[in-house]
Amino acid sequence: MPFVNIKIAGNSPTKEQKERVIKGVTDVLVTELGKNPATTFVVIEEVPTDNWGIGGESVTERRKKTG
Amino acid sequence: MPFVNIKIAGNSPTKEQKERVIKGVTDVLVTELGKNPATTFVVIEEVPTDNWGIGGESVTERRKKTG
Amino acid sequence: MPFVNIKIAGNSPTKEQKERVIKGVTDVLVTELGKNPATTFVVIEEVPTDNWGIGGESVTERRKKTG
Amino acid sequence: MPFVNIKIAGNSPTKEQKERVIKGVTDVLVTELGKNPATTFVVIEEVPTDNWGIGGESVTERRKKTG
Amino acid sequence: MPFVNIKIAGNSPTKEQKERVIKGVTDVLVTELGKNPATTFVVIEEVPTDNWGIGGESVTERRKKTG
Amino acid sequence: MPFVNIKIAGNSPTKEQKERVIKGVTDVLVTELGKNPATTFVVIEEVPTDNWGIGGESVTERRKKTG
Repeated sequence: MPFVNIKIAGNSPTKEQKERVIKGVTDVLVTELGKNPATTFVVIEEVPTDNWGIGGESVTERRKKTG
Repeated sequence: MPFVNIKIAGNSPTKEQKERVIKGVTDVLVTELGKNPATTFVVIEEVPTDNWGIGGESVTERRKKTG
Repeated sequence: MPFVNIKIAGNSPTKEQKERVIKGVTDVLVTELGKNPATTFVVIEEVPTDNWGIGGESVTERRKKTG
Repeated sequence: MPFVNIKIAGNSPTKEQKERVIKGVTDVLVTELGKNPATTFVVIEEVPTDNWGIGGESVTERRKKTG
Repeated sequence: MPFVNIKIAGNSPTKEQKERVIKGVTDVLVTELGKNPATTFVVIEEVPTDNWGIGGESVTERRKKTG
Repeated sequence: MPFVNIKIAGNSPTKEQKERVIKGVTDVLVTELGKNPATTFVVIEEVPTDNWGIGGESVTERRKKTG
């Protein structure tokens, strides 16, 4: 009964992309660890780029620089 | 000084429901583990049904089927 | 289908205490939010007191002082 | 730059299984969301069955009943 | 490659405040633990005061009392 | 009343290093966001390098290659 929490920054995925991520990640846990999909949760959290830091600055600032 | 994080999918609870969840969960930790309520945090996170997967599909899709 | 993560510092609860915490917290979500217990997960994480800070110092140090 | 946290209960996977989970989940995020693998983190947390509840009881108790 | 998740309740910080938090927390991990900033993530999550409990009540209610 | 969760891979920091991380991160939140240290929690979680993936492989494997 795994619980998977995926945090991502930036543009929100489409509903179809989210479905494929949920399906794909669940399949990995079923195939590789023998987990039961019926009790496998996958929760996607979307984080604004102002709130996600890497290298000591927000993704918002970082993307300005790398254009 | 426990920290409790509750993630739920779907319809947002009312403010009154959230108060009762916070009170109820805090009481459990005070009663069963002897924790100090003054340093017990309870954080409720509401997740859109498109972003919560179970059984390899989103709760949105699952509810359409079991409608 | 809620997911509850409880982080606690200090002495490990007994197995019986953990059972009562799991039961008590699940009951709160069933009673107050109408959640299905069959898809309610409760995960307890025990954190060493050296690794838990409050007020800018570890619980280990804090307890020495308030002894 | 996604961050994935996978919590699982019960028997610890082998090192090889963990490698395949890390690889598989990263591939899903690269393929479906176009994420950069170099900044994709996957963290696996193993939780003792006494500490994981479902249906209001621990996985330890639940497994005793279902044999 | 640390991952830092900061949850805060109440008024949303400004973009500038978030930048300084990201910078400051990253600096602590670089200075004290020798971590590489290029693989240090800091994610800030803002939680509504209705959803954050302390002492068995929401921050919303608590602030009414302490006005 | 912030809650900070720091996950790190690899060698366990010393108790003194953990104290300095707790103090440093708390100071950042007090200085930059005006938070009350008395209700600021910092929890450090140490993750085995087999369980932390980046770039689709575990930190254990990655370190073998980069020597």
